[in-house]
Amino acid sequence: MRFNFWLITNILGLLLVINGVFMLLCLPFSIYYREDIWHLATAGAISIVAGGLTWLGTRNEQNKELKKKDGYLIVTLGWLCMSCFGSLPYILSGTIPDFTNAFFETISGYTTTGASVLTDIESAPKGILFWRSLTQWIGGMGIIVLAVAILPILGIGGMQLFVAEAPGISPDKMKPRIKEVAKRLWFIYLGLTLIETVLLMFGGMTFYDAINHALTTMATGGFSTKNASVAYYDSAYIQYVIIIFMFLAGTNFTITYFGLKGKFKKVWANEEFRNYLIIVLLLSISISFFVFSSTWEGFEKSFRDSLFQVVSIITTTGFVTADYTKWAPFLTIVFFLLMFLGASTGSTAGGIKVVRHTLLFKNSFLEMRRQLHPSAVIPVRLNGAAVSRSITYNVLAFVMIYMLVYAIGVFLLSFTGVEFDTALGAVATSLGNIGPGLGEVGPVDNFNSITPFGKWILSFLMLLGRLELFTVLMLFNMNFWQKY
Amino acid sequence: MRFNFWLITNILGLLLVINGVFMLLCLPFSIYYREDIWHLATAGAISIVAGGLTWLGTRNEQNKELKKKDGYLIVTLGWLCMSCFGSLPYILSGTIPDFTNAFFETISGYTTTGASVLTDIESAPKGILFWRSLTQWIGGMGIIVLAVAILPILGIGGMQLFVAEAPGISPDKMKPRIKEVAKRLWFIYLGLTLIETVLLMFGGMTFYDAINHALTTMATGGFSTKNASVAYYDSAYIQYVIIIFMFLAGTNFTITYFGLKGKFKKVWANEEFRNYLIIVLLLSISISFFVFSSTWEGFEKSFRDSLFQVVSIITTTGFVTADYTKWAPFLTIVFFLLMFLGASTGSTAGGIKVVRHTLLFKNSFLEMRRQLHPSAVIPVRLNGAAVSRSITYNVLAFVMIYMLVYAIGVFLLSFTGVEFDTALGAVATSLGNIGPGLGEVGPVDNFNSITPFGKWILSFLMLLGRLELFTVLMLFNMNFWQKY
Ligand SMILES: [K+]
Ligand SMILES: [K+]
Repeated sequence: MRFNFWLITNILGLLLVINGVFMLLCLPFSIYYREDIWHLATAGAISIVAGGLTWLGTRNEQNKELKKKDGYLIVTLGWLCMSCFGSLPYILSGTIPDFTNAFFETISGYTTTGASVLTDIESAPKGILFWRSLTQWIGGMGIIVLAVAILPILGIGGMQLFVAEAPGISPDKMKPRIKEVAKRLWFIYLGLTLIETVLLMFGGMTFYDAINHALTTMATGGFSTKNASVAYYDSAYIQYVIIIFMFLAGTNFTITYFGLKGKFKKVWANEEFRNYLIIVLLLSISISFFVFSSTWEGFEKSFRDSLFQVVSIITTTGFVTADYTKWAPFLTIVFFLLMFLGASTGSTAGGIKVVRHTLLFKNSFLEMRRQLHPSAVIPVRLNGAAVSRSITYNVLAFVMIYMLVYAIGVFLLSFTGVEFDTALGAVATSLGNIGPGLGEVGPVDNFNSITPFGKWILSFLMLLGRLELFTVLMLFNMNFWQKY
Repeated sequence: MRFNFWLITNILGLLLVINGVFMLLCLPFSIYYREDIWHLATAGAISIVAGGLTWLGTRNEQNKELKKKDGYLIVTLGWLCMSCFGSLPYILSGTIPDFTNAFFETISGYTTTGASVLTDIESAPKGILFWRSLTQWIGGMGIIVLAVAILPILGIGGMQLFVAEAPGISPDKMKPRIKEVAKRLWFIYLGLTLIETVLLMFGGMTFYDAINHALTTMATGGFSTKNASVAYYDSAYIQYVIIIFMFLAGTNFTITYFGLKGKFKKVWANEEFRNYLIIVLLLSISISFFVFSSTWEGFEKSFRDSLFQVVSIITTTGFVTADYTKWAPFLTIVFFLLMFLGASTGSTAGGIKVVRHTLLFKNSFLEMRRQLHPSAVIPVRLNGAAVSRSITYNVLAFVMIYMLVYAIGVFLLSFTGVEFDTALGAVATSLGNIGPGLGEVGPVDNFNSITPFGKWILSFLMLLGRLELFTVLMLFNMNFWQKY
């Protein structure tokens, strides 16, 4: 047999069971806020029963070994399966009765995008909103496994390069590595979420709001429980706490691990982290001068607004404390360009990511030197080591496909009749898993006005972007399905 | 000595003399239309004297041989020198008294971009307008030499791949090849210009208007003698003639040469030509349905308008018979995306070009196959032959730098306070040497409203795009200036 279909089915079953258990975790909030509990209970029960039966029926397969090709299928099908079952709470509760909208909201959650169709978030049941935040946090957990353990083995977009430790295991057997690496990083992920919850409560947030925002910060998701997003909290303390945790969520978790162990030399030696930090600081400071000179609201406020929005877009979180499309035309353009940056690999951030930009930038300079000396071999160096030509090649191809998918996405979305800036912004924000866009889908708007056709396109783009393109596109490649 | 500075100076002197002679060629029109002739005569005299003295003073250097590095300098300095002296007629005649504006109009001519600062073209002296058209035609001649003879030797952006014949000469000696290839293709260029002039006169154009439009069509320049561009001529015949010649101007001149010799099999075997033709036809037909259903002006008119605009943008000519930004929001987006296409290499068209897109598209698919079989060597094939990895690499780097320069250009232009669509359109149209953009610089507008700072940025982008990026960027690379 070419694929381990039954083993894949087994794993998908397990994922659904976990998904169902997470749904039941929302019940305490429903009970506390005296809301109907049967919607979430039913959705959870359906997930657990459907997943459990699938899992039991295929449990004989568990001892088989996953192959490389199975990896592509599990990842894509996993995210799709979760998104289908994950939309049940919205549909059953009537919060989002329409399947297209409910699926959009759910996949926007699991892909940690944070684009929403809800026009009045605060009127939705608290239990459902907690589920909404939880989908992002679950998505973030998945991304950590994906980025640190699966993608490097699949050889996608040069991801093998960005894992800070030596792989040391055969690329055809991924199971042992997943468990070992994931455990350590999930612990950091969970720990930071809890610390942020506590710190936000110190700032006066209720436990409910604090945990919701902490869950979606660490996932770089950006779903909020307030219509005005973080702008609702007119507190410098709360906003700075969220800025710090957005920044951490956009940092490679392996780097954070080294930081926690006090190995600061190792942290600073990482080129991606250094560039990420420098970009954030440089941009925030420059932009704050422009914001200050156009709003005159005090320099601290201008700096904070600027820093918050820059960190929010670069880390692809998408929280909002100010509408950057209202500041000045040129800042709209700056934020549009920032949507193509992305934060660090090995974090929960989406987008192209800083290390790829670093590699391409360096390679562009070297390409000129190569033209002067056509026979010389001139490799790109990263973190002090030469990067193999095939990895550089792969990163170039990745960014090329990213831009190609972007152009096709804009082309398709434009058929729905949206304006120029809306189309360019909506596709950039979906593909980069950011959340807010431009025009009709700007920072203070939502995606409700997009047609169903447009929502399906954007949903697909979120999945594509989140799974680093190749994982999904591979399934559309004839070679993938060939016997060999 | 590292560079043959004096030989370079000698060639620049010769270019200025030729430039001056071309200026004097405008005099018959000035005389015929009873305009002041001294502006053009003075400008021509200055060019000839300055160039002549430089040439005479360095003529001992002529026997030396040009090296690869000299090529980069000659090309960039040549275009800049011509643009400085070429702006004299505008300044002396007072048609464009300001140096920034005059330089912008001139470099827009020599780079065959066609972006204009003139608000009332028809009020300018006929002699000066002929000079304006001539700058584009001269630029086109330069581009033919550049694309077919110089860039392949410099190894830029995979250009060595797209020359239809075998090079057969050492890359360090370019002189013999330039002369032989350039002569043959210039003959086609000149011939097509004359044929188009005659055909346009059959359609009722005056000799003056016909030759002006023929000059700027074959250069894919797009300067017109009418404020309304080709829309002024409400004649299906004239518009179809211009469509055909724009298409020819966007075709590799070597392919046209084979076509004229009746070798149609060889023409059809060329993948770039095939894709170029298919893209033009497919897009024009699809778009004509949308134009028809929104304007209801008759299907022939809709098809013609659609075909004209598609061919005009893809070939980077920039003539206008209808405002595509007024048709439907989604067509604005389509034409914006088309600005990144470009026509064929070895033609006078600017932009990224079809063959690079073809290569990247194929490579993207293959990259997925490479991920499945990491140890296999899977090259891209073009025109039936495998493309070397270093050429594919170079093309990838080219497109990457193109997008990077685009982003930086948009970022810089946004500081001048222009709107989102204006910034994105102006930079795309300048870098791609097209002419019309979006928003304030749309098809029926001009570049007069851009600030001086913005005009210098756009001028630089035109030069960058026209000289295939690397030629100019190389000069900013420290390695270039190092002894070796
Ligand atoms: K997000
Ligand atoms: K043009």
